[in-house]
Amino acid sequence: MPDWQERSKSKLEELPFPSLQPQHEVNRGISVLDFVLRLVAVAATIGSAVAMGTTNETLPFFTQFIQFKAQYNDLPSFTFFVIANAVVSAYLILSLPLSIYHIVRTTSSARGSRIILIFLDAAMMALLTAGASAAAAVVYLAHKGNARANWFAICQQFNSFCERTSASLIGSFIGIVVFVLLLILLSFMAISRR
Amino acid sequence: MPDWQERSKSKLEELPFPSLQPQHEVNRGISVLDFVLRLVAVAATIGSAVAMGTTNETLPFFTQFIQFKAQYNDLPSFTFFVIANAVVSAYLILSLPLSIYHIVRTTSSARGSRIILIFLDAAMMALLTAGASAAAAVVYLAHKGNARANWFAICQQFNSFCERTSASLIGSFIGIVVFVLLLILLSFMAISRR
Repeated sequence: MPDWQERSKSKLEELPFPSLQPQHEVNRGISVLDFVLRLVAVAATIGSAVAMGTTNETLPFFTQFIQFKAQYNDLPSFTFFVIANAVVSAYLILSLPLSIYHIVRTTSSARGSRIILIFLDAAMMALLTAGASAAAAVVYLAHKGNARANWFAICQQFNSFCERTSASLIGSFIGIVVFVLLLILLSFMAISRR
Repeated sequence: MPDWQERSKSKLEELPFPSLQPQHEVNRGISVLDFVLRLVAVAATIGSAVAMGTTNETLPFFTQFIQFKAQYNDLPSFTFFVIANAVVSAYLILSLPLSIYHIVRTTSSARGSRIILIFLDAAMMALLTAGASAAAAVVYLAHKGNARANWFAICQQFNSFCERTSASLIGSFIGIVVFVLLLILLSFMAISRR
């Protein structure tokens, strides 16, 4: 028998309620996964906010009166996108201590705080989705334009601006996917706990 | 003592565990509220989808080649808005039986189905938010235009089209508010149940 099997076996035997222990281990594993996913989401949303917020392109040609320049705050949807990402990343950082508490404390007393976390996560997911989809709608218009409304695709001129704004959406959508995974994990925990 | 007080008093006295009954009544009341809120959200989202989907304006003047016409599917964001609202209203109708089950069954065995409902409601809220905010971003552009991107406000020409699309956003945002209330109610129930 290998060494690790022996150790885990002896560990199980010395515990007072052996049948309860595997469930505890699973719960602790899920709590650690929850913590890691939150870190991923923090990185993704901060990355999105910074990438969009620092977008700035000045075209190399200008007339006597106008210098052609594009910034994120020329379009209100992009401003909202930056704010939404900043708020969500701040929330995620504040939720990390609670996530650590769930790793330490796997007993059923943490059920209430898990359900509160489900609710807050859902609210933040909605905010992030709103920001990302408003920005995506405008990015789509910038790329394709709209013939019926006579809106031209500005990406032909502001090429790097468009690429940067499109790329910054990725972080937000990663954040949304992570929130869905977090909701699945937390719901599973809330249902499965005895 | 009025008649109803007497009746409720005698009802309480004849029950085997009087201390448990008020909790049950509160739970049943919240479940009924849940059902009513779902009906409101169904009406709001169907109204939104229909209002946006039937928008159609033809301007009274035309050139030899072009007749100026605006429909919801000229703008992809509006198409997404209609689809999102239709999907969410279909989900809400399908969730009504589960909501009725929660009214009938207030015992703790319904906790699992409540948490599943929290998860699904959160997902649908995200979809509805995405549709509403993408459409809102485009409606904003249609109203205000954008000087930097050289996009003109089309609302000066397509007046009734713009009013109709703006108004159809209201239903979606009512739906989002109802989802937030549903999540609060369901989370409260999931935490408070013994």
